[in-house]
Amino acid sequence: MANGVNEFGLIDDITQALGDSATAPWVHVGIGDDAAVMRPRPGFDAVASIDTLVADVHFPMSAPADLIGYRALMVSLSDLAAMAALPRYALVALTLPELGSQISPQWVQQLAQGMAMAAEETGTALCGGNLTRGALSISVSVHGEVEQGQAKLRSSGEPGQRLFVTGALGGAAACLRQQQHLPVAPDALSAMQNAYYRPQARFDCRRDIQAASCAIDISDGLLQDLNHVLKASGCGADLRAAAIPLAAGASLEDALSGGDDYQLLFASAESVATGVCIGELSSELGLRLDGKDVEIHGYQHFSA
Amino acid sequence: MANGVNEFGLIDDITQALGDSATAPWVHVGIGDDAAVMRPRPGFDAVASIDTLVADVHFPMSAPADLIGYRALMVSLSDLAAMAALPRYALVALTLPELGSQISPQWVQQLAQGMAMAAEETGTALCGGNLTRGALSISVSVHGEVEQGQAKLRSSGEPGQRLFVTGALGGAAACLRQQQHLPVAPDALSAMQNAYYRPQARFDCRRDIQAASCAIDISDGLLQDLNHVLKASGCGADLRAAAIPLAAGASLEDALSGGDDYQLLFASAESVATGVCIGELSSELGLRLDGKDVEIHGYQHFSA
Repeated sequence: MANGVNEFGLIDDITQALGDSATAPWVHVGIGDDAAVMRPRPGFDAVASIDTLVADVHFPMSAPADLIGYRALMVSLSDLAAMAALPRYALVALTLPELGSQISPQWVQQLAQGMAMAAEETGTALCGGNLTRGALSISVSVHGEVEQGQAKLRSSGEPGQRLFVTGALGGAAACLRQQQHLPVAPDALSAMQNAYYRPQARFDCRRDIQAASCAIDISDGLLQDLNHVLKASGCGADLRAAAIPLAAGASLEDALSGGDDYQLLFASAESVATGVCIGELSSELGLRLDGKDVEIHGYQHFSA
Repeated sequence: MANGVNEFGLIDDITQALGDSATAPWVHVGIGDDAAVMRPRPGFDAVASIDTLVADVHFPMSAPADLIGYRALMVSLSDLAAMAALPRYALVALTLPELGSQISPQWVQQLAQGMAMAAEETGTALCGGNLTRGALSISVSVHGEVEQGQAKLRSSGEPGQRLFVTGALGGAAACLRQQQHLPVAPDALSAMQNAYYRPQARFDCRRDIQAASCAIDISDGLLQDLNHVLKASGCGADLRAAAIPLAAGASLEDALSGGDDYQLLFASAESVATGVCIGELSSELGLRLDGKDVEIHGYQHFSA
């Protein structure tokens, strides 16, 4: 390997790039032992999810490494936000090809810096990980906490409740569809590039999610993720096309079936501070847009 | 994809193969929502580690899938055992190539069955995961608990304490060196194959690990992992070659520098129930075998 960098040297580089984001008051043992040790908050449940992002499937390998890192942590954290949880820590398993011109030690440091930025913005400690050799991919295990018994599920929606999304949809899908994702200048992202590379885990909407009956993050497209809620809750839904907030450059189809939005979808009988109402849950099974039955198209990793 | 199997169908297959191993009394929300929800035990710290196993780097792609799955969970859990933690749950991120003749839905089910066996043997709940498309690899995030403040670190060894290992070393390395790992019949593993495919996370040694001053799991070879302890503890060590327990078919070199053993190495001033004494920690820095300085060779994922 170039420059005699070895696994442990690379781990030192990463740890340095992470800086303060590797620690938090609840982390008692961080990077450098067999495992990390955290002190749970009394009265809270642990909430945990894992995601893998594969190069040239979930991100373009030639994108700036800091954007790849930022996005990898944020899209994983979004699952915690959808449970009404607060983030606490994350573990990152990084699989890297042989280091060379494309993936250099500097690239790895930039990746870590991007993750550190997302970690700092959300209050997440990047307190452990793993480094191994293989095709480039990033697995992120994210961990949060929620008041005991208060995790928000997909399965508690009820007919008559209004459906909300936490923000504009379709921006990331539009970015990919219009091939705006490359080239990209990290310091001057267009609105569309921002939607793709800098999704925000919506912890800022936590009060509305706590008051909601059910919630899910929109990672695979509005219709497909709403359909998960409908199946789990045993009800149907009516959506109004004109009410669906579209991101800059996005078509209705981008918003309905495009992935990578990472906004939250929730149903609520309460008044809402942060969401845009897009329709209602219904006792009539099925999913209708402006009164017409719709077919579900969304991102499937293994579709036929 | 063959048979119209899609991502959600495959997840259903996996969930079915996991059976009871997907749940435990402390798991309040398991597979099927944005994240899993666990109830921590009061007075305990959370212990967490992540590992990735890449096909044809960490396991032969053509090995029986149940052995791959069993081994993937066990080697990950070993990090928890080294911290004196008890296992609670694991999340699995599975990256699969396009399903076909080599990786079929049945292969995936067998992988899950192997993981379920390791989960049942250790009392671990496989309560969440992720499925994505890419080169075959398995990332496992493992989570345990330990009495508050009682996690066992690498850094607390002291000169004069005896060094122990929890079992015979070098078996897995010998299996690979002698190319005994393939072909393999799952129901009739040789002792060497057993060492490679069925490592045991040594939770059964927990009392000795709790009473130890420091501990580490031997995943990258005895010398290299001992060296981590020495650096973290700021001391040296003297080993006796004749005292190092060798697995069936293993040479001393396999035991010293071969990876994949997943036995625990610990130092203790106490009398010990489960370990074999192989030497002592010393105030004289460096690592000596029968009085002679030794160079460290071990498994490095990114060595030059």
